Amino acid sequence: MNNSITSLFNIKYPIIQGGMIWCSGWKLASAVSNAGGLGLIGTGSMRLEIAEEHIKKCAKATDKPFGVNIPLLYPYSDEIISIVLKEKVKIVFTSAGNPKKYTSVLKENGVTVVHVVANKKFALKAVEAGVDAIVAEGFEAGGHNGFEETTTMVLIPMIREVVDIPLIAAGGIASGKAMYAAMALGADGVQIGSRFAATAESSAHPKFHEEIVKADDGDTVLTLKQIVPVRLIKNDFLKKVQQLENKGATKEEFLQFLGKGRARKGMFEGDTIEGELEIGQVASMIRSVEPVAKIIADIVTEFNQVSEKMSGRKL
Amino acid sequence: MNNSITSLFNIKYPIIQGGMIWCSGWKLASAVSNAGGLGLIGTGSMRLEIAEEHIKKCAKATDKPFGVNIPLLYPYSDEIISIVLKEKVKIVFTSAGNPKKYTSVLKENGVTVVHVVANKKFALKAVEAGVDAIVAEGFEAGGHNGFEETTTMVLIPMIREVVDIPLIAAGGIASGKAMYAAMALGADGVQIGSRFAATAESSAHPKFHEEIVKADDGDTVLTLKQIVPVRLIKNDFLKKVQQLENKGATKEEFLQFLGKGRARKGMFEGDTIEGELEIGQVASMIRSVEPVAKIIADIVTEFNQVSEKMSGRKL
Repeated sequence: MNNSITSLFNIKYPIIQGGMIWCSGWKLASAVSNAGGLGLIGTGSMRLEIAEEHIKKCAKATDKPFGVNIPLLYPYSDEIISIVLKEKVKIVFTSAGNPKKYTSVLKENGVTVVHVVANKKFALKAVEAGVDAIVAEGFEAGGHNGFEETTTMVLIPMIREVVDIPLIAAGGIASGKAMYAAMALGADGVQIGSRFAATAESSAHPKFHEEIVKADDGDTVLTLKQIVPVRLIKNDFLKKVQQLENKGATKEEFLQFLGKGRARKGMFEGDTIEGELEIGQVASMIRSVEPVAKIIADIVTEFNQVSEKMSGRKL
Repeated sequence: MNNSITSLFNIKYPIIQGGMIWCSGWKLASAVSNAGGLGLIGTGSMRLEIAEEHIKKCAKATDKPFGVNIPLLYPYSDEIISIVLKEKVKIVFTSAGNPKKYTSVLKENGVTVVHVVANKKFALKAVEAGVDAIVAEGFEAGGHNGFEETTTMVLIPMIREVVDIPLIAAGGIASGKAMYAAMALGADGVQIGSRFAATAESSAHPKFHEEIVKADDGDTVLTLKQIVPVRLIKNDFLKKVQQLENKGATKEEFLQFLGKGRARKGMFEGDTIEGELEIGQVASMIRSVEPVAKIIADIVTEFNQVSEKMSGRKL
């Protein structure tokens, strides 16, 4: 397939691996890029020297294009941008913030810029800021999410209607079937997070992997809406968050309870009881940890099977 | 198209009009059936004699198959079942309750039975109860919804995996594009609510129609999770509900505040400030009130266009 996404990034398949905190270092990103997708290093959980190291290692591990994801609420995003420019990273995905912040400086330096949005308003803002493509991420997605709670099924056609630049669908996509559906809805490619979090190359703790594999229907919840909404697996930590919600706790009480390093604790250190475990609803369909190459091969096979099956359908 | 849904109901298109409270009387149901879909009378908001009248009028207004929807939490569902059998209604959709309650008696009387579910557990229960088909309804849908908050994108492939009987997708579907995507995900047909609520034949109040047309991204919320989750348009009533939520109100406080007849007030009487306005997220894509025949013709045209566009796509 050749389309606006494969040619924008110069990749084989319009499959982007979401830049996730604590899961997507150079190993995962380079494996995805080597398999024909676009790998992203998730810098949101990295100290500066670690981010630089991952970028350098990724460049050595693949001769294919790769990129980095920078959540703009991250306090060191200025410094990460400097590292990105110094290391001549060619693709940057920004998220969780104002797309105007870095798009110009990145574009002036020849970087391809993509911004992640969860609503129509920010999609239009991103276009205005001059980004090359948009990721539109539905309510079912893991990690940070929008206040509108618009699902992928509704979000993609809605954004497609108002945006002409390449559009990448995210949220609830972990299979060739869902990828095909997202493209029928108007997307030019997909961003997949959860399925890549549960791979051999992901840096997620094995105990977090186990929780993803165990997760079934209804086992994730969009929570912490008082601060920034985030989708987590149900565990003791989430129970305590919900107790605070039920008694109508203030933002300050939430922040005090949360403290620091909850996501690191859960996702990277494997404290699946007291830590934060960010994953999408589609974890209910993930039954095993697999190598990246197998995941991508399976998605391609299933996409082509569904395409065959749907071929010529007429009402 | 001939498939398991068109042959189960003996209809032209696998398009079912959701049986909605205060919107879907005999006029809407017969218009949908006459246009080649399956119309459903929503009995959840009808007194018994009214339900009987609507069934009789519908049978006169169309020689095509039609059905009724019975929410099982409705206190008079026993009596509605008797009316259905007396009037020889051939198709019944049950929702919001245990599928075992009426499936046997309906099947013994030659009625085709479909049950609406929002999660995997109830899909399996419905199959066990012996229903002929399942509607799986995602988080984005209007009206009553599941506690799992699973979206259509995730729900349909998940249910398809565990269920062999005909599967109807609902939630976020108001266009040919979304219908095609739902079928790629594994559905055999679709149930459409919101789009049919905003038709000339719907019995929704014109002021409710206006609110649907005005609704944009983020303008509906899944609320009242303390009682039964329901998706509503944001208005003054919802603001008050959210104030109760924020102060951690008890179930009893909610019930006392709600009182009775809130949905009737909003959807049927047009009090869009103090009434309950049930609609799906996809209202953000509904820009006008149209006749049913045009809606169905547009869905068919768009479905076929998308099918053409997606034809032969290979990764």
